[in-house]
Amino acid sequence: MNAPQALNRSPLEVAQQLAEQFAQTAAERDKTGGNPKYERDLIRQSGLLGLSIPTQYGGQGADWKTIFQTIRTIAQVDSSLAHVYGFHHLLIATVQLFSQPEQYAKWFEDTAKNNLFWGNTLNPLDRRTTATQILENEYIFQGDKSFCSGSIDSDILLCSGFNEAGKLLIGVIPTARRGVSFLGDWNNMGQRQTDSGTSHFEQVKISKNELLLNPGPLSTPYSSVRPLIAQLIFVHLFLGVAEGAFELAKETVQNQKAWSKSLAENAVNDPFTQKHFAEFYVQLESVRLLANKAVESLQEAWNIGEDLTAEQRGQVSVAIATAKIAATNTSLFVTQNIFQVMGARATTAKLNLDRFWRNVRTQTLHDPIDYKYQEVGEWVLTGKVPDPSFYS
Amino acid sequence: MNAPQALNRSPLEVAQQLAEQFAQTAAERDKTGGNPKYERDLIRQSGLLGLSIPTQYGGQGADWKTIFQTIRTIAQVDSSLAHVYGFHHLLIATVQLFSQPEQYAKWFEDTAKNNLFWGNTLNPLDRRTTATQILENEYIFQGDKSFCSGSIDSDILLCSGFNEAGKLLIGVIPTARRGVSFLGDWNNMGQRQTDSGTSHFEQVKISKNELLLNPGPLSTPYSSVRPLIAQLIFVHLFLGVAEGAFELAKETVQNQKAWSKSLAENAVNDPFTQKHFAEFYVQLESVRLLANKAVESLQEAWNIGEDLTAEQRGQVSVAIATAKIAATNTSLFVTQNIFQVMGARATTAKLNLDRFWRNVRTQTLHDPIDYKYQEVGEWVLTGKVPDPSFYS
Amino acid sequence: MNAPQALNRSPLEVAQQLAEQFAQTAAERDKTGGNPKYERDLIRQSGLLGLSIPTQYGGQGADWKTIFQTIRTIAQVDSSLAHVYGFHHLLIATVQLFSQPEQYAKWFEDTAKNNLFWGNTLNPLDRRTTATQILENEYIFQGDKSFCSGSIDSDILLCSGFNEAGKLLIGVIPTARRGVSFLGDWNNMGQRQTDSGTSHFEQVKISKNELLLNPGPLSTPYSSVRPLIAQLIFVHLFLGVAEGAFELAKETVQNQKAWSKSLAENAVNDPFTQKHFAEFYVQLESVRLLANKAVESLQEAWNIGEDLTAEQRGQVSVAIATAKIAATNTSLFVTQNIFQVMGARATTAKLNLDRFWRNVRTQTLHDPIDYKYQEVGEWVLTGKVPDPSFYS
Amino acid sequence: MNAPQALNRSPLEVAQQLAEQFAQTAAERDKTGGNPKYERDLIRQSGLLGLSIPTQYGGQGADWKTIFQTIRTIAQVDSSLAHVYGFHHLLIATVQLFSQPEQYAKWFEDTAKNNLFWGNTLNPLDRRTTATQILENEYIFQGDKSFCSGSIDSDILLCSGFNEAGKLLIGVIPTARRGVSFLGDWNNMGQRQTDSGTSHFEQVKISKNELLLNPGPLSTPYSSVRPLIAQLIFVHLFLGVAEGAFELAKETVQNQKAWSKSLAENAVNDPFTQKHFAEFYVQLESVRLLANKAVESLQEAWNIGEDLTAEQRGQVSVAIATAKIAATNTSLFVTQNIFQVMGARATTAKLNLDRFWRNVRTQTLHDPIDYKYQEVGEWVLTGKVPDPSFYS
Repeated sequence: MNAPQALNRSPLEVAQQLAEQFAQTAAERDKTGGNPKYERDLIRQSGLLGLSIPTQYGGQGADWKTIFQTIRTIAQVDSSLAHVYGFHHLLIATVQLFSQPEQYAKWFEDTAKNNLFWGNTLNPLDRRTTATQILENEYIFQGDKSFCSGSIDSDILLCSGFNEAGKLLIGVIPTARRGVSFLGDWNNMGQRQTDSGTSHFEQVKISKNELLLNPGPLSTPYSSVRPLIAQLIFVHLFLGVAEGAFELAKETVQNQKAWSKSLAENAVNDPFTQKHFAEFYVQLESVRLLANKAVESLQEAWNIGEDLTAEQRGQVSVAIATAKIAATNTSLFVTQNIFQVMGARATTAKLNLDRFWRNVRTQTLHDPIDYKYQEVGEWVLTGKVPDPSFYS
Repeated sequence: MNAPQALNRSPLEVAQQLAEQFAQTAAERDKTGGNPKYERDLIRQSGLLGLSIPTQYGGQGADWKTIFQTIRTIAQVDSSLAHVYGFHHLLIATVQLFSQPEQYAKWFEDTAKNNLFWGNTLNPLDRRTTATQILENEYIFQGDKSFCSGSIDSDILLCSGFNEAGKLLIGVIPTARRGVSFLGDWNNMGQRQTDSGTSHFEQVKISKNELLLNPGPLSTPYSSVRPLIAQLIFVHLFLGVAEGAFELAKETVQNQKAWSKSLAENAVNDPFTQKHFAEFYVQLESVRLLANKAVESLQEAWNIGEDLTAEQRGQVSVAIATAKIAATNTSLFVTQNIFQVMGARATTAKLNLDRFWRNVRTQTLHDPIDYKYQEVGEWVLTGKVPDPSFYS
Repeated sequence: MNAPQALNRSPLEVAQQLAEQFAQTAAERDKTGGNPKYERDLIRQSGLLGLSIPTQYGGQGADWKTIFQTIRTIAQVDSSLAHVYGFHHLLIATVQLFSQPEQYAKWFEDTAKNNLFWGNTLNPLDRRTTATQILENEYIFQGDKSFCSGSIDSDILLCSGFNEAGKLLIGVIPTARRGVSFLGDWNNMGQRQTDSGTSHFEQVKISKNELLLNPGPLSTPYSSVRPLIAQLIFVHLFLGVAEGAFELAKETVQNQKAWSKSLAENAVNDPFTQKHFAEFYVQLESVRLLANKAVESLQEAWNIGEDLTAEQRGQVSVAIATAKIAATNTSLFVTQNIFQVMGARATTAKLNLDRFWRNVRTQTLHDPIDYKYQEVGEWVLTGKVPDPSFYS
Repeated sequence: MNAPQALNRSPLEVAQQLAEQFAQTAAERDKTGGNPKYERDLIRQSGLLGLSIPTQYGGQGADWKTIFQTIRTIAQVDSSLAHVYGFHHLLIATVQLFSQPEQYAKWFEDTAKNNLFWGNTLNPLDRRTTATQILENEYIFQGDKSFCSGSIDSDILLCSGFNEAGKLLIGVIPTARRGVSFLGDWNNMGQRQTDSGTSHFEQVKISKNELLLNPGPLSTPYSSVRPLIAQLIFVHLFLGVAEGAFELAKETVQNQKAWSKSLAENAVNDPFTQKHFAEFYVQLESVRLLANKAVESLQEAWNIGEDLTAEQRGQVSVAIATAKIAATNTSLFVTQNIFQVMGARATTAKLNLDRFWRNVRTQTLHDPIDYKYQEVGEWVLTGKVPDPSFYS
């Protein structure tokens, strides 16, 4: 397997090439749903799975700006793949935030060397998986876990269970570990190839040194940066989808005649069509800038490390919530209204253009945007930053 | 076959009962697409196909208010069936507007007696079907026609072709007429069971007395009421879909807890949720009233008959355009935002709740809403009513 | 003084003529503020002050539809005069709802015969005025009262005070009663000629038979209709102002050239201008219909009288809240955006066109519209109608 | 007169201090209108009039970012003063773009040394002032000119007239030049202290070396940057006003109780109030970022100088149009809706809070925002950048 960085292409160029490949089949694969094995292997071969891994472990040590740009580039054509790709990097970050280098060094080296794909079975709201300590160094995970994006066909799994005391324990294991299985029951109106279905843990043995105990989840302001990264991945998914829809609408309209009653002959000169595209553009530009600012803010917090204060972490949270509100509204607006400019023929199932809307409509519901408004508004009025949680 | 009016139920009650039956399978049938034969037969058996047929021909002679209410009731659960059902009545009206009683009496009597379902292959923008006069009393229709909603499984067909002089000739024939076939190629993101695909006419013989020549299509202000009825059917489709989505969202939310950060325990007491529903309700009420007003306006014009002036017809056109603008915006708004109040679990493919949005997003593109604004705005500013066309 | 009904004009014609007179000076009077004595006398002379008084007392016994239409007609040119005129009828209704015919017969006869103008010093939120019973039949009112719209230059005053037990007592007295004075301190950004300033009661004697004790304020569902009438007056103020602004913008634009970059020569043919006006029109039509429906709903409740149930009263409340939400949004939208179509020259102080926005921006804040949404949303979700209060 | 830079304060600190002084009287001065002589002298004394003058002429040679920030800071409290202050710098730039250093060196030195205030009588749409060459080196300007912001109390005047050939000639003269007078006829609903009234030129002698002939107005892509600076000043006015309104609303709400029906006790915890503020904040953040990007884009073009290509100039134009669309919408939204959160008491004339809305409503009409959408949309769809003009 040849990592493409050998070819001296930038990560963005690599992501762009992947996107071009994914675009060929995205409409069709959205209909099928299921696991995009072929495309996941293309991601493995691209070398981008090592993008966020520090160079000392053989990764590319990219900054967050670069990482998010690759996510967004892929989201422009396929937000399911962008999601699981983005979550791979979230999981890499999770390990850095919840544990120590001596623990994760080996995992990172393996990942960078062998282009391992990480999968997520963390969902902290689903308390059905129990974690029982049976020996000093051995735990048994038992039970189900829902919303496990990217679990199927993963190589390494971030998993979680609750111990008797009700504490959330998070572990990292090979996906091939005996007792781990996936139900393959993800079938949603959007994000259809994220494999976000149910995992089952049947007496899965996990050793203590596979658990992320120091400092553990959301235990410090710095470790609490984890959910912020997740939220910022969503921002880039929404933005990418909206940009993809925008580009496609633009290309379509460039070849259309204006409606018979228009003062213009071609659609590109129709005043209403022009105004619609300007509205799209102004909103997209806003989201791009808000997202960039949030990324810079995250990078600063990331660089600070464990010295990060609760207040500093809160500022990042507000910047990301701000970007998320705008990205949510814009992605819904653009993906709904591209049809207004493209007209009735854009509704043929063959083009499957409703997938843009279905994807953002689904993903924007991860947690209610009303409460992002609430958090930002409370901060504006009282100065209180959002309390850290898996959603804020 | 027993017509249900024998049971002394009102047309609305009949429609309501049909809606309840359709609701059982609507989500599933939307996925399948294709021809809803079983449900079309239920409509036949309901007797509602005779609703718009004057009593002297054995129909129920209902007013437009009743007819539109039955369409809207069905649209609340299944906008594909509402569409073909509505278009059946549009075709009945078309014949009344484009021809004379002596010509259509027999068709109406047959329809009322045998619950015949009319289908549409009229599309005046598709000029591929030619109409060639080969004898004094005989024409040959040859070619394809696209967007033929309700054609498959119809009993009577309204068809059209262009003669050598470029004039549109419209005929009424049994669907079983030799040479008529349907490609079954309708596969769109919405309105998936309308069978709006391609029809093919292979040397189809049509006699002169099957052609609607007196007064013919759009030849007078009164005959030009035909496209207004089509537009008003759309208004009721949009309204019905939005109402259906609203009801379903309401029932769902009534059983939900509020988000963890809410000041309220139950979703029905969450301020943001309450405000969303109020926004839905205020918009729906507006559309209901605008639609009612447009229906009254249409009924008045219908009652006037051939004495209808261009100006009177124009006023109806403006009332319907006004209702259509509001219905378009509201139906898109409600069907998109029900997810905001229902949350992530509403996106499971099993519920297929995106069909509401897909249906209105598709149907609202019949002709661009920007040019409905244009027509209304021009009328406000200059007093000029919209020129009659198949879209205004 | 000749009442104009002698001339056999309808109340609407009378209101229309008043409006034409008020329009001459409305812009100028808005700048001046203060008491519009001359115009108030024109209202007196018009006979419209007897419009809501039952015929047995010499009034015109008009229905609510007619009363609200006269308010809206005046609001189209002058929302301050419309406000105090509307509140006059609110006070007539208040007496009917809070007391018995034997008590109010004389007041009504005087009002109808002499065209008396009623003024308001009721504000139930301002508890500074005390009502002390000093004899079996005599009370002393002492203190200040804010927001007393229409108090200055009134002939009869509805006043209120709190007794030792904290109960609100409402009385009806001649404005000329010794001890009553007005500070003339109303100076607001909008509704500048409503005289909504402070009243002072200096040892004002009020006899028991001037107090509205049977059934008293908000004591039954029927008496609780009073605040609903106030809210519906606001709806007609907002609608009237928006209609006035719309008409004026239309006339202006009809004489303008389009912007140099437009595809059209004249503004009336500019696509953007047309779309703006269509947006105005569609919203105004919606509000007109919602307001009409609310009026019908109020009239039904009014006709029922003391048998009105809490649920029936609640339905009226919801209908009015619905209309108020739409009227608030629409009036702000139209009065802000008329400038968009009229252009920079519309901002000259000479025209004083910002008064439309200032008037609705001020009056729409009477009570927060967010909580009208809240009430409607709660009713949608739970069926609970709003609790009666002076705001719901 | 001591320039404050001697005190080692940054231009932003100086602007901030000015803003604090202006804020004391802004509400009152808005009512009065007329020429803010005292405040204009404070600007003179602040030294900020030399901010944009290159250091070789004794100025501070600030970059555009700094210049625009000072404009925005002043606009937060007083958009009239911000306007004339901003236009001063626009006129300084105009001279640099339309003429050569040898011509403007002396003007700049005088301006920097003596804190001269430049005034504008340029309006290219008003063709009433003629420029007649009577000698090789002497021209006579004769006639009126409207919309001359900042003309009264200026020290130097940029003026314009049309010669016999219809060519626009622009000159720079001392305001005290014989024959120059101002009618003082500016009285508008907003921007009331900009003195944007009529100037009169009565046989005003202008020598050839006072005319900006090389390269002259809009003669090259670089010289055509001038109107872009004007547009970007507007963006910062709109943003500043919106920020000022936002701050004031925030402070007010921080001291308010929530409405009686709220689930919260204090307004800062009311969900609806929080959401309104979040909406304001997200929009303001977007505008800040779009404005910053446009400023950077302008600075780059400015640095390129006469080598600037039409395409490069066009990109700046699009960036500024994008920011202007967002700033227009946001400033109208925020200044209208601050009242929603502050409530009825915010409408007292004493506070004069409607001035925020009146100011942006007036200034946003300088040229129609619809055609900014049109330009951006056309560029998106066709790649064609806006043609240079005094508005694009």
